[in-house]
Amino acid sequence: MSKLLNSRRKPGLCTTVVEQLKTVLGDGAYLTAPEDMSPYLTDRRGLFAARTALVARPGSTEQVCEVVKICAETGVGIVPQGGNTGLVGGSVPDDSGAELLLSLSRMNAVREVDRLNSTATVEAGCILADVQRVAEEAGLLFPLSLAAEGSCQIGGNLATNAGGTAVLRYGNARDLVLGLEVVTASGEVWNGLRRLRKDNTGYDLKQLFLGSEGTLGVITAAVVKLFPRPKQVHAAFLALSSVDAATDLLMSCYEAVGEALSTFEYLDHTSVELPLRYVPDTRRPLAKTYDHYVFLEIGSTREDDDLSERLETILEAGYESGEILDATIAQTGAQRDALWRLREAIPEATRTAGAGIKHDVSVPVSRVPEFLQSAGEIVRRLHPDALIVSFGHLGDGNIHYNLTQPDGVSVEDFLAPEAALREAIYELVASLDGSFSAEHGIGRLKRDALERYRAGTEIEMMRALKRALDPDNILNPGRVV
Amino acid sequence: MSKLLNSRRKPGLCTTVVEQLKTVLGDGAYLTAPEDMSPYLTDRRGLFAARTALVARPGSTEQVCEVVKICAETGVGIVPQGGNTGLVGGSVPDDSGAELLLSLSRMNAVREVDRLNSTATVEAGCILADVQRVAEEAGLLFPLSLAAEGSCQIGGNLATNAGGTAVLRYGNARDLVLGLEVVTASGEVWNGLRRLRKDNTGYDLKQLFLGSEGTLGVITAAVVKLFPRPKQVHAAFLALSSVDAATDLLMSCYEAVGEALSTFEYLDHTSVELPLRYVPDTRRPLAKTYDHYVFLEIGSTREDDDLSERLETILEAGYESGEILDATIAQTGAQRDALWRLREAIPEATRTAGAGIKHDVSVPVSRVPEFLQSAGEIVRRLHPDALIVSFGHLGDGNIHYNLTQPDGVSVEDFLAPEAALREAIYELVASLDGSFSAEHGIGRLKRDALERYRAGTEIEMMRALKRALDPDNILNPGRVV
Repeated sequence: MSKLLNSRRKPGLCTTVVEQLKTVLGDGAYLTAPEDMSPYLTDRRGLFAARTALVARPGSTEQVCEVVKICAETGVGIVPQGGNTGLVGGSVPDDSGAELLLSLSRMNAVREVDRLNSTATVEAGCILADVQRVAEEAGLLFPLSLAAEGSCQIGGNLATNAGGTAVLRYGNARDLVLGLEVVTASGEVWNGLRRLRKDNTGYDLKQLFLGSEGTLGVITAAVVKLFPRPKQVHAAFLALSSVDAATDLLMSCYEAVGEALSTFEYLDHTSVELPLRYVPDTRRPLAKTYDHYVFLEIGSTREDDDLSERLETILEAGYESGEILDATIAQTGAQRDALWRLREAIPEATRTAGAGIKHDVSVPVSRVPEFLQSAGEIVRRLHPDALIVSFGHLGDGNIHYNLTQPDGVSVEDFLAPEAALREAIYELVASLDGSFSAEHGIGRLKRDALERYRAGTEIEMMRALKRALDPDNILNPGRVV
Repeated sequence: MSKLLNSRRKPGLCTTVVEQLKTVLGDGAYLTAPEDMSPYLTDRRGLFAARTALVARPGSTEQVCEVVKICAETGVGIVPQGGNTGLVGGSVPDDSGAELLLSLSRMNAVREVDRLNSTATVEAGCILADVQRVAEEAGLLFPLSLAAEGSCQIGGNLATNAGGTAVLRYGNARDLVLGLEVVTASGEVWNGLRRLRKDNTGYDLKQLFLGSEGTLGVITAAVVKLFPRPKQVHAAFLALSSVDAATDLLMSCYEAVGEALSTFEYLDHTSVELPLRYVPDTRRPLAKTYDHYVFLEIGSTREDDDLSERLETILEAGYESGEILDATIAQTGAQRDALWRLREAIPEATRTAGAGIKHDVSVPVSRVPEFLQSAGEIVRRLHPDALIVSFGHLGDGNIHYNLTQPDGVSVEDFLAPEAALREAIYELVASLDGSFSAEHGIGRLKRDALERYRAGTEIEMMRALKRALDPDNILNPGRVV
């Protein structure tokens, strides 16, 4: 894989290079002690062993340039890192010790908020929750929202084109960006921090960097779009008779409230039970248990909108048709928070429950019922003991189809069928015109799948782009392509 | 400019190549008679002389591949063309006769409409209005809308990242695409016709082709997003006391109705007077004349929404503050159509009125008043006789800042200050962090401006991408980069 790209590697992060880096960075802008570097070297899922001699923590775009220039001259691979919450091994060095970890976390200034233009210019190291807060202080909304928002950083969100729970209404991370500042593979700054809603002056370079996982350039700052802030939001948690009932409900919601629908999440039985069992402060939302749930939110930028009555009308119709079995509407902010807490506790709950086999897949929304049906058959055939924990962003066709280690089965036995199972699930996804990585990206974990499930023409174009922008393969080498 | 890219050109469209092309295309799939080719060789603004020996009109993606392969082998430059409504000379061959015109107009099938997934898969040659109609028949909306919608083709809209009058709510053309089918420079098909709302499997190739004006690949089909259809729309035409009053009104509308605002167009005095004078069936919308107008639309996907009362509340507040001087709300579909007709007749009116000096520029929305103020001073200084016709998509910061030949001034005299004036306007735009081409693109007309107003780093990256995907420079050579 990617042979052409790895040929020119030089010695790596030797003592001389480390000293050079220390000099340009200065005290406080690097770490070398193992205990200080440890959190930067631990990947979220614990799948990858990582080593490095130095964690660079530049405080400015100019320092990033200097670091990249040194690495370019000496052939040192650079692994850019934001909040290190990625799930595919894209943000930690390999175990050779030859790669430099470039943390953007100290570059966390908010450079500008332009309220009338509805934009904010933020540095890569800003925590996502802080960007949300800055928007709120301007009376606006930055809609990107995901479970890791308290620690992930906007630079990483953009480099990986993060998805999350508001994609239905506001799009993926790449849809929320008007401009970027990027340090190129040769250590130059591209100042593309434009704040324009319309700009057709040549190729849209920013879209190429967005989602490229740090392999084409290092994002140091961005202009993000802000939106009118909803003045009312209504959250509901429903039990449904089937997955088809869930997609029917999605269409009814669109019919009734249009784009007011901002969140439409599917949860299966176990996705609700595991958090209740393993995560403190989670509450059962409905009196009984069911096989299929939907958590939805609708919001309006108008204070006196009659959205809550509309929601009730939708639910009544669902009750009458027998598709909705039970429902609760959050009556207070605390109740709404409790529903979110349950939804966002699923990843933590599955980690606590035991080993996992995870698939972050998407299919056209119209094919979600077929996917869940067929995937269930695959699991019953290949791994009947596994607990299915399927949940996710049904409104986007993105399902986290995960299996969790059940009580009384060893990790080894649980993981034994992993390869066969993954292959069967990915083949199913491919047959439904879907994607084997809906929002988590490729990193190091899914390179084989990329080779297998994307056409040769497509891979060759990606490699050609990589060679064009990073000819010496120093930016996150061996990730993506 | 672009020296590296033009070096390998071979003899061009000689008789042998023409015969080869005729053979692979077959009868009915090419034109050679001058009178048949003439409409394809006439650019919309009449700025460019164009010649070719053959207009290829393939009927399938396979035929496009065969044509591109022949051209790749023989070094013939290919100029892809949709509805030929572009304004920057990107869709007609040069006057050498050595370039092939590749018309996609016969590839106009709607391959699929997936209502539950809210997508349509359409071929490049579909007329934009037909795509809108297909969406309507499915009870959904394809929101891309522009004056040329009756003749422009979706392939061209995507290749040029068209803007238009609904960008405020739905985004530019590039925001409306989930997947593409593209024929590459070597004549291979990239089938990227995915229908997914989320897909993070490597670089987003489609975003690179979108807006690249046919220089990186030939778009043959696309999956476009469809939206819930508004069930009510209200149009209003207002006279305002100043441009600042217009941006204030934009903010008030956002506050009051949020994303329900779909169109917010600015028109100056002359932008209203010229259509009334030169275009049949246009009607004066207000009893008196004013210096500044806004044409806006708000829409809701809910039938019983109280949007019209909200609009009245906004207008009342504007009257009271003195910012709104007069207003009319369309009471019938016919009245709404008449307002649209006036807005869309402006380009035709300026063409009829005489010669024009045009600028399709954008600035951050917050800086539009400053732009219009300073641009007016430039015109008074450099070209006091010219009629200013400034109008456009204020909600996106995109102003068509055009000058029209006044009565009693010769074309030569009128055009004499063009270069100096354009330079002054572009410098102003640059000083306001704006763009010299908001929606029309680069083509052949604005290559010099691209060189001048975009950083060397940025141009070099674009050239590297061009070399990576079209190393022999056969796709729309000499356009964009």
